[in-house]
Amino acid sequence: MKKIRIGIVGYGNIGKALETAIKNSSDVELVAVFTRRSPSEIKIKTETAKVVKFSQAEKYKDNIDVMVLCTGSAKDLPVHGVEFAKMFNTVDSFDTHAKIPEYLNNVDESAQASGKVSIISIGWDPGLFSMIRMISEAVLPNGVTHTFWGKGVSQGHSDAVRKVPGVKKAIQYTIPIDSAVDRIRSGENPKLSAGEKHLRECFVVCDENADKSKIESQIKSMPNYFADYETKVHFISEEEFEMNHSKMPHGGLVIRNGLTGVGKLHNQTIEFSLKLESNPEFTSSVLLAYARAAYRMNMAGMKGAKTIFDVPIYYLSPRSREELIKDLL
Amino acid sequence: MKKIRIGIVGYGNIGKALETAIKNSSDVELVAVFTRRSPSEIKIKTETAKVVKFSQAEKYKDNIDVMVLCTGSAKDLPVHGVEFAKMFNTVDSFDTHAKIPEYLNNVDESAQASGKVSIISIGWDPGLFSMIRMISEAVLPNGVTHTFWGKGVSQGHSDAVRKVPGVKKAIQYTIPIDSAVDRIRSGENPKLSAGEKHLRECFVVCDENADKSKIESQIKSMPNYFADYETKVHFISEEEFEMNHSKMPHGGLVIRNGLTGVGKLHNQTIEFSLKLESNPEFTSSVLLAYARAAYRMNMAGMKGAKTIFDVPIYYLSPRSREELIKDLL
Repeated sequence: MKKIRIGIVGYGNIGKALETAIKNSSDVELVAVFTRRSPSEIKIKTETAKVVKFSQAEKYKDNIDVMVLCTGSAKDLPVHGVEFAKMFNTVDSFDTHAKIPEYLNNVDESAQASGKVSIISIGWDPGLFSMIRMISEAVLPNGVTHTFWGKGVSQGHSDAVRKVPGVKKAIQYTIPIDSAVDRIRSGENPKLSAGEKHLRECFVVCDENADKSKIESQIKSMPNYFADYETKVHFISEEEFEMNHSKMPHGGLVIRNGLTGVGKLHNQTIEFSLKLESNPEFTSSVLLAYARAAYRMNMAGMKGAKTIFDVPIYYLSPRSREELIKDLL
Repeated sequence: MKKIRIGIVGYGNIGKALETAIKNSSDVELVAVFTRRSPSEIKIKTETAKVVKFSQAEKYKDNIDVMVLCTGSAKDLPVHGVEFAKMFNTVDSFDTHAKIPEYLNNVDESAQASGKVSIISIGWDPGLFSMIRMISEAVLPNGVTHTFWGKGVSQGHSDAVRKVPGVKKAIQYTIPIDSAVDRIRSGENPKLSAGEKHLRECFVVCDENADKSKIESQIKSMPNYFADYETKVHFISEEEFEMNHSKMPHGGLVIRNGLTGVGKLHNQTIEFSLKLESNPEFTSSVLLAYARAAYRMNMAGMKGAKTIFDVPIYYLSPRSREELIKDLL
């Protein structure tokens, strides 16, 4: 069987992890990594693939079946998503929540014109968690959905801590509060703020002679990021930081408690959870499954921008629909 | 907005529970319950709906948008699924696993001819569990999926116990073995038989003067049903039986442990679980969401027999795609 030919746009954490996911799947192959940097600066692990400048992407129109966009949501994807959809099937993990409808429309315009399929906002949240929230609400309309994130590294919060003067290195873990999870699992639907559901734990390496108590209070009082949360700050050595805090674990859970019945009501609980040793490797594994779907949906005659709500899931698998029905239904 | 008009075929546990699910959803209405019995024997709870003989179903072709087939998988659905798909969009919970491909083909023939949509094998297993098994495997190809059922009532096993001479009433609970679940959650992938994953607990009311030790040994040695499991048998009074064992709880979990990465591997765990106070009410809630999907897919021009792998999930919700993307993605 002909392999699905993949291009990776952007070679950061997700792009690199995607390369390993491609190596682990026999129905796909990496053709090229596209970069804004000078290609000679980038060393990839796939000998048969090339490193190419963004500006040369058009030359690959007939050699790449799906481009997986692994650049940032804030400034990159609003441009890259729209541009690449003019030439390729694409998948991305656009996660600036408030701007998803606008982004979807813009990408759709490109993809309708090119006759390609672009699947946006893929990963685990937005992504698999969104799927579970949507299905659970449709199945149990009379209910409440709760989402928890962690235990895991938040890049945004880690960046915020690193910007505090005197901080040399820092990592921030978001951690669900057990007692809140337990109340919800038991069928209660308390109204909890994000800060009542999660605590934040920071591990900080500071500059020599830095004022630790000042750093700690600056972190804890940071609006939006920390002020509304129980925050723990630990100062550690650089050695300890490198040894214990170089991984990118994450995870989380979605729980919906719903009531069914008339008169005598029954509680029904749906729970979906992820425990990830590597967040980028998992996210890129989801992206790869949806890259397969984008290609196959396009082969089946579809076009335009899609979300996880629009994709029949059998397109995610390299196995045939018949085999999936026989083995997994 | 015009409500989706539903017909219920068969008024057992699932049919009755479906009636309550329809009452709890504002975008659907019950038109009629279809039965093989004499309609005068059946009292339904929806004043505006009728009870109608199977043979009169054809007269409702223009008044019902989706028929939800709530009859048995063993003998009823292989006939009903094929017959009703000749006239209506349908949804069913066909669960005779080995016969799903054949059933799908037969229903597809009817639905292709009538231009309707039939979604088969809907519920939670087959159903939502199948969906999670399929997605998890596609996302984490290098891994192992484990399914546990319970704690919950197995009708098949309860029936088997009731057939033992001297048994007056009986119920059987299937219970996941905690230590097996814990091993899998911790990332281990032991090869466990169904009997190493579940234990079986029976509550039995026996006839006066029945030989309890004989009944117990007959249950425990029953091939397929109990012989390969750790089975507990409790003899209780009829009062206790009515008081504590008249509900139909169920649940279960699907866990996939997968490895990602090259060289340095990372364990990734996906878990989906259900804790249901009423199995029939939850199953019928899933059926109702897919009934909505069958109707809307047909309105969108689709036809033929479908499975849970084929249905874009936004069709499950009464809310618009735009609203779902804005609120839940």
